[in-house]
Amino acid sequence: MAWFYEHYRDASATGIHTTGLVHAEKSEFQSIAVHETVGHGRLLTLDDMVMLTELDEFVYHDLLTHVPLCVHPNPRAVLVVGGGDGGSVRETLKHPSVERVVQCEIDERVTRVCQEHIPSVAGALDDPRVELVFADATAYVKQHPDSFDAILVDSTEPIGPAAALFAEPFFRDLSAALRPGGVISSQAESPFYAPEVVRELFTSVRKVFAEVHGYYGVVPTYPGGGWVFCLASDTRRPEQADLDRAKALSSRYYSPALASGAFALPPFIAELVE
Amino acid sequence: MAWFYEHYRDASATGIHTTGLVHAEKSEFQSIAVHETVGHGRLLTLDDMVMLTELDEFVYHDLLTHVPLCVHPNPRAVLVVGGGDGGSVRETLKHPSVERVVQCEIDERVTRVCQEHIPSVAGALDDPRVELVFADATAYVKQHPDSFDAILVDSTEPIGPAAALFAEPFFRDLSAALRPGGVISSQAESPFYAPEVVRELFTSVRKVFAEVHGYYGVVPTYPGGGWVFCLASDTRRPEQADLDRAKALSSRYYSPALASGAFALPPFIAELVE
Repeated sequence: MAWFYEHYRDASATGIHTTGLVHAEKSEFQSIAVHETVGHGRLLTLDDMVMLTELDEFVYHDLLTHVPLCVHPNPRAVLVVGGGDGGSVRETLKHPSVERVVQCEIDERVTRVCQEHIPSVAGALDDPRVELVFADATAYVKQHPDSFDAILVDSTEPIGPAAALFAEPFFRDLSAALRPGGVISSQAESPFYAPEVVRELFTSVRKVFAEVHGYYGVVPTYPGGGWVFCLASDTRRPEQADLDRAKALSSRYYSPALASGAFALPPFIAELVE
Repeated sequence: MAWFYEHYRDASATGIHTTGLVHAEKSEFQSIAVHETVGHGRLLTLDDMVMLTELDEFVYHDLLTHVPLCVHPNPRAVLVVGGGDGGSVRETLKHPSVERVVQCEIDERVTRVCQEHIPSVAGALDDPRVELVFADATAYVKQHPDSFDAILVDSTEPIGPAAALFAEPFFRDLSAALRPGGVISSQAESPFYAPEVVRELFTSVRKVFAEVHGYYGVVPTYPGGGWVFCLASDTRRPEQADLDRAKALSSRYYSPALASGAFALPPFIAELVE
């Protein structure tokens, strides 16, 4: 029995009571660990940062996935950037129109570890509609113009290789990789502890897309809990969410009420994303 | 330099980097401490539980206060139950119709410590409209029927003396202490880590009030961040919020969008409060 602590920016910390180490390794890119816990199911960490717990991953994955996919009228081809744990793919496959999901994760070991040790999250990755690509997503999107109806940027924090996933050139490439009418979503960090990251991300995205909207949710095991997300498109707006599909998803976090409610931002967040 | 950790239900923990102890004492009721921190301003703890930090107390106080007061058409007399730090009083006084605020806190030392060491929160307590009562609120409300337009239950966790503030008899007394058309709000704990507390509170309140509605916000330094609140009344509903007043408050957390958006509950919370 021990506690795992993630210390964030020298100011705050999140602790999770663990009961044992299920798996640990150093991959080519990072250290990967899976812990069993007292109250959070299994915990995945990368370089000692919480990536997910089975208790609350539904919040993050439902918001990153269902918000953009319900705003698109008919998403058929979807790209997940990063997201090696498979949670975003699992949720994407719940949309009946989806014919193909590409998960482009730089570190194959993350996916293999999750498939072995966190099947509740990674279990959908063997669906025949899924294509696993283990490569640098910044290169992959350049090579696949006009290919996707939705792109979900399921990244880690903007340090190391993931920093490029928060910058304007990447969003220009994402725009080119979208089919007409396509949408993107991106996780956008903590408004309390990383407000300048939130602001910079939205500034970058606004240079590329005509419609850029922030939304907000609570992922308890992320620093501060509150987490911003970004929805962007040249044409689609949050108000265009398909509420019948939203209802049919039977999500624990997303619903017709959330389709608009998640965009009702407290003023201190609204000013970061405007 | 040290870290303060609040461990919650043996499952999770919240850590705050502290730089020094400003004040510590044992009162008749509990241990009280104020810390200076790296990134949170000053931190108040009671029995080693985070009560507030200057970084994020605005979320909690704005939601507990402005939601019920904007739903009431003309709040003149307001009772704050607990809330010895003065934050709920500070926000209540921003409503121009308010003529009188009673803060009924069981532990005078909490208020005096905050007045001395956290004036950004407690500084409004010397306003002439404020009446400080240091007494058991369960007794106080019995003695003051038909007296208040709004009652804000700004309690600690439902353990020890605060447990009574989550039970049906207390809400019956609150109902009697309200003037016709009155409203109450109560903090209602974490939907992730204390779902049974959320459910029990709403079950109790529903036995007393005709209109009972849950709302939700993110207080990063509370366990899990996500926090449920309860709005209850015999007659008033969230849709009746005065949006002109909501806008005029210039709150960092509450706004006309939040007046409805805070009630857009994720399904996993909606099922706890229904």
